[in-house]
Amino acid sequence: MTKFQVTILGCGSAMPTTLHNPPSQLIEMNDKLFMIDCGEGTQLQMRKFKTRIGKLHSVFISHLHGDHIFGLPGLISTLSLLGRKNDLNIYAHKEIDFLITPLIAYMGKHLTFKVNIIPLDPDKVDIIFENRAIKVTSFPLKHRIDTNGFIFEEKESLRHIIREMIDFHQIPYNQIYDIKNGADFVKSNGEVIKNNILTYQGSPAKRYAYCSDTAYAPEIIPYIFKADLLYHEATFAESELLRARETYHSTARQAAEIAKEAEVKKLVIGHYSSRYNELGFLLKEAVAIFPDTELATEGKIFEL
Amino acid sequence: MTKFQVTILGCGSAMPTTLHNPPSQLIEMNDKLFMIDCGEGTQLQMRKFKTRIGKLHSVFISHLHGDHIFGLPGLISTLSLLGRKNDLNIYAHKEIDFLITPLIAYMGKHLTFKVNIIPLDPDKVDIIFENRAIKVTSFPLKHRIDTNGFIFEEKESLRHIIREMIDFHQIPYNQIYDIKNGADFVKSNGEVIKNNILTYQGSPAKRYAYCSDTAYAPEIIPYIFKADLLYHEATFAESELLRARETYHSTARQAAEIAKEAEVKKLVIGHYSSRYNELGFLLKEAVAIFPDTELATEGKIFEL
Repeated sequence: MTKFQVTILGCGSAMPTTLHNPPSQLIEMNDKLFMIDCGEGTQLQMRKFKTRIGKLHSVFISHLHGDHIFGLPGLISTLSLLGRKNDLNIYAHKEIDFLITPLIAYMGKHLTFKVNIIPLDPDKVDIIFENRAIKVTSFPLKHRIDTNGFIFEEKESLRHIIREMIDFHQIPYNQIYDIKNGADFVKSNGEVIKNNILTYQGSPAKRYAYCSDTAYAPEIIPYIFKADLLYHEATFAESELLRARETYHSTARQAAEIAKEAEVKKLVIGHYSSRYNELGFLLKEAVAIFPDTELATEGKIFEL
Repeated sequence: MTKFQVTILGCGSAMPTTLHNPPSQLIEMNDKLFMIDCGEGTQLQMRKFKTRIGKLHSVFISHLHGDHIFGLPGLISTLSLLGRKNDLNIYAHKEIDFLITPLIAYMGKHLTFKVNIIPLDPDKVDIIFENRAIKVTSFPLKHRIDTNGFIFEEKESLRHIIREMIDFHQIPYNQIYDIKNGADFVKSNGEVIKNNILTYQGSPAKRYAYCSDTAYAPEIIPYIFKADLLYHEATFAESELLRARETYHSTARQAAEIAKEAEVKKLVIGHYSSRYNELGFLLKEAVAIFPDTELATEGKIFEL
């Protein structure tokens, strides 16, 4: 599989600070960019980090708190100034209508492309996007309002052919696809060449899980189990556990506990409360439970 | 008069760049902050430049292109998170409803204050705000859609009393206000003490004029005549004069010509096209016509 990486555009929370932008990130898979959440200033961050806005495929919105959506009008407007022609699909709670529909009506004929709102079901696990190489699943998180987490995953890749063996057995081109899918080759004389002589296994399919915003919710573990990378919100330090509970957010320690129970390969924490200028202690609290934890920062890229 | 200053929060144009934010500026007068335009990221710029969001009095929107208004949802939402109680007046074209009304409906009971939209008349000169010390006037600019310029001006300040003379003539407190307004003092024996013995002239009232976005429009000169500071858009260099005409924008040279004809004290240019990485030549073109010209930059403060 080609590049699979996550770029953090913003990892702050409701109240913007001089240190962190409101939530947004870009998932690059298979030469396409998928955006998760779109806080105010997201298009400015895309410029800053020189991401390729022309490759933006679609947008996935976890929930409708302002810090996750107020970048959409500017993004849509700029895509239109740039002359985008392809539809833009926005996967979000259906109430996002309140922001998008009046904007589209106001822009009218100036809008160069169509915006489709694809409503998410906040209560169940759903495959919401799928093509030959990629699958995106949404699942319920536990927040003050309906909120969805997302899994971006590669599909099982095809087996790689061994060119020399294909040539040696003079296998016709029209059979290559079946062989990549695991078929044996039957020669005209009836001899069977086993698939494992002709191919070797493709690279394993990888999975990225996004969980923000959410209270500590062990019930999500089956969805994110053994993900290669988990982004989990860690709005608060353990000293603010009560505040985390009240506001349906997580502490860094809780994020790490989810990562540990879910046996993910790596954890990235973010969505920091505006009260924290320094984040070392959040990292420390997480690492104590789950050693392979990193702090999100604007501009940081995580490769899967 | 107390402080009167303009802080540039953004001086880019429709397409954001890594160098400039979308338009917004803050006018500080009489210990209040007035905002003109509110492009995406304005509240983030307020944080960055440590302006005091709690002092925000009202917002003046020149026109409804996205780069001048898409910061409003985030600003309103943050003011509410901060617990603002005072009404927020937004002076703008009445169609701004499309952005504000659905937002307020969506925020519902979470919004801690009332937002009032005060519609601007795009066709005439109008005093739109006035208190004891300040007057704000709107006037028509010449753009692709209805657009207003603004004048922020101090009112003629009262005369300053000469404390020693007041004491010497034993003038009662209840007469001081009249004397500050220019009245003579009549003693109980009928003797008249002339006002100019009791007071000296207050500092002259100052005026700030904002003209963006606009084509070259000499018809605005009467409104901005002899302003202490003029902000005039200069989207293009003279080499793009045709493009400026087509899009109803100005060149730096045209901005300077307006400044010269209007006999303003100082000109600040901004609203730069995203095509320019370097602005020295725009400044050069303006200075050739009007020497006291400065380039706007994010974070720059102009004192009147």
